[in-house]
Amino acid sequence: MKKLLVLMMVLVLSLSFIGTVAAQDDTPLKGDPDDEYVMVTFVSGIEYWKPAYRGMEDAAKNLGVSTRYTGANDYDINQQVTVLEQVISQNPAGILLTCINPDALAGPINRAMEAGIPVVTFDADAPDSDRYSFLATSNYEAGVTAANYLAELNDEKGDLGLITIPGQLNHEERAQGFEETIANNYPDMEVVSIQDGQSDQAASARAMGSMIQANPDLVGVFTTEASTGVGAATAVKEADMVDSIDIVSFDTDKGTLDYVKDGIIDATLAQGTWNMGYWGQMFLFHLNEGLLNPIGDGDWKEAGINPLPNYVDTGVNLVTKDNVDFYYGD
Amino acid sequence: MKKLLVLMMVLVLSLSFIGTVAAQDDTPLKGDPDDEYVMVTFVSGIEYWKPAYRGMEDAAKNLGVSTRYTGANDYDINQQVTVLEQVISQNPAGILLTCINPDALAGPINRAMEAGIPVVTFDADAPDSDRYSFLATSNYEAGVTAANYLAELNDEKGDLGLITIPGQLNHEERAQGFEETIANNYPDMEVVSIQDGQSDQAASARAMGSMIQANPDLVGVFTTEASTGVGAATAVKEADMVDSIDIVSFDTDKGTLDYVKDGIIDATLAQGTWNMGYWGQMFLFHLNEGLLNPIGDGDWKEAGINPLPNYVDTGVNLVTKDNVDFYYGD
Repeated sequence: MKKLLVLMMVLVLSLSFIGTVAAQDDTPLKGDPDDEYVMVTFVSGIEYWKPAYRGMEDAAKNLGVSTRYTGANDYDINQQVTVLEQVISQNPAGILLTCINPDALAGPINRAMEAGIPVVTFDADAPDSDRYSFLATSNYEAGVTAANYLAELNDEKGDLGLITIPGQLNHEERAQGFEETIANNYPDMEVVSIQDGQSDQAASARAMGSMIQANPDLVGVFTTEASTGVGAATAVKEADMVDSIDIVSFDTDKGTLDYVKDGIIDATLAQGTWNMGYWGQMFLFHLNEGLLNPIGDGDWKEAGINPLPNYVDTGVNLVTKDNVDFYYGD
Repeated sequence: MKKLLVLMMVLVLSLSFIGTVAAQDDTPLKGDPDDEYVMVTFVSGIEYWKPAYRGMEDAAKNLGVSTRYTGANDYDINQQVTVLEQVISQNPAGILLTCINPDALAGPINRAMEAGIPVVTFDADAPDSDRYSFLATSNYEAGVTAANYLAELNDEKGDLGLITIPGQLNHEERAQGFEETIANNYPDMEVVSIQDGQSDQAASARAMGSMIQANPDLVGVFTTEASTGVGAATAVKEADMVDSIDIVSFDTDKGTLDYVKDGIIDATLAQGTWNMGYWGQMFLFHLNEGLLNPIGDGDWKEAGINPLPNYVDTGVNLVTKDNVDFYYGD
């Protein structure tokens, strides 16, 4: 009986041992809950970052590691540099960062990388820094999507307008993708008017109003920013031209979604922010755990190469009356 | 004593039960070894696909799932369609596909997607199909990298040449990235000669020879393809101008690596093929296991949106004399 008891105890111990070893050996994609990965943003209280951090949390949960969210409260370069430097001094397992300014953050990013803390950027990059990868919306491709959808809605015929923010790179790229697609692919369509919406609802409403007056045959407009879209929508509604003028806007704040639900904005482009957070966390985990073998048995660090994809275009999805309900509360 | 034994048995049973449940609950990134993911290529025997499939195998090993490699033996559209249709009929867990032709493969891809088999493309896309995502080298960005490196080697001064394959989209894009970067960023540099290398070593050697004769001040050349680079290298060597003319080439076949090792080709651009396979497999696993929550609790299928990044630029790395040894045998 005593022998049986000893045997039992051995069995208990070896079972738990086997269990532990198996759990470790079989799952390199399972990390340490004590490893903390940090997301650093600017204007950190806005809704826009929430799906990105939700993506990061989802990935961390799947990987069994921890995350923390922080950032500069305001739109303030020095503030974000300070917050980032504080995070670096705490030696986290990795940093997922969106950059208020590419130049000001390059220094701290490179210091983190030298200290062995992997950095990946999302939404807004510091391209001249040593960061491993950048996940964001291709603004040019978003403009292409807007052009193709306005063409589809209007049987590839008619005059189009564009309300954007000249001089701001991301808006210039959205405008360029839109204009080039119409010029190259739709011979019976033309962008007849380009206005400055000044990122302001009232200014955009005025711009849209004068565009309608000057171009009576307008069939559609692309607004490269959310306030611009809401402004254009109020003007189109006021002019009683909801049926004849299609609007494609950008992002999914509540004001825009309400106009989509009402059918005044025909579609808005939702960015893949969840994917920025999810795959950004995946990339950081793989760096931290040494799971990347781009040159096989060779050490990529020694070879001086980047082991990760340089850039991920997280894409846009069309939000229309049909699927707008899915975007409330995101 | 008997009570103790019963207690022990309960302990053994509950420990193994807890172990099993924990292993399942804690690791959504662990799949079923019976789930088989398939890579489908064309000219399936060439070296070029090997790092991509190695990446897919590495990801599958980490995830605990199985993979299989297949493809058309030849450069034959009908053959690849047949192979792909056979794979679809076997109902695999997912397909990672490179497309010999975008139009011919769109039909089978869409049928696979309708049958619930996720498809992700790599290296060569079928952009008008319903595939979820595409992982590849941005050819434009590769051209930018070549331009910046030739500028760095020559203190941002001097005449440059370009040997490419006019009319082939990927080569046109590489050439465009190169030419635009020199024109926009380096006022003291100029692309003075553009030649057709015809994807042929001898033709490229002739093109390089006449380029040298016509442009005695040439400081560098970008060759957008491997045979072209080897041809250019032989011509530069023959003209005894190895020290004055820098060559940046493309890909990492043995002939190119040998010229890099000898210092005749100054750098070649290595594509991130391992990353195409690794993250392609990751994407397919996430689709198959229902791990993507881009709109939170909402069902992305019902919302009709793409849950994955649309495009991943796996990037290029510069292979020089310093790190060329890491690329042999890859």
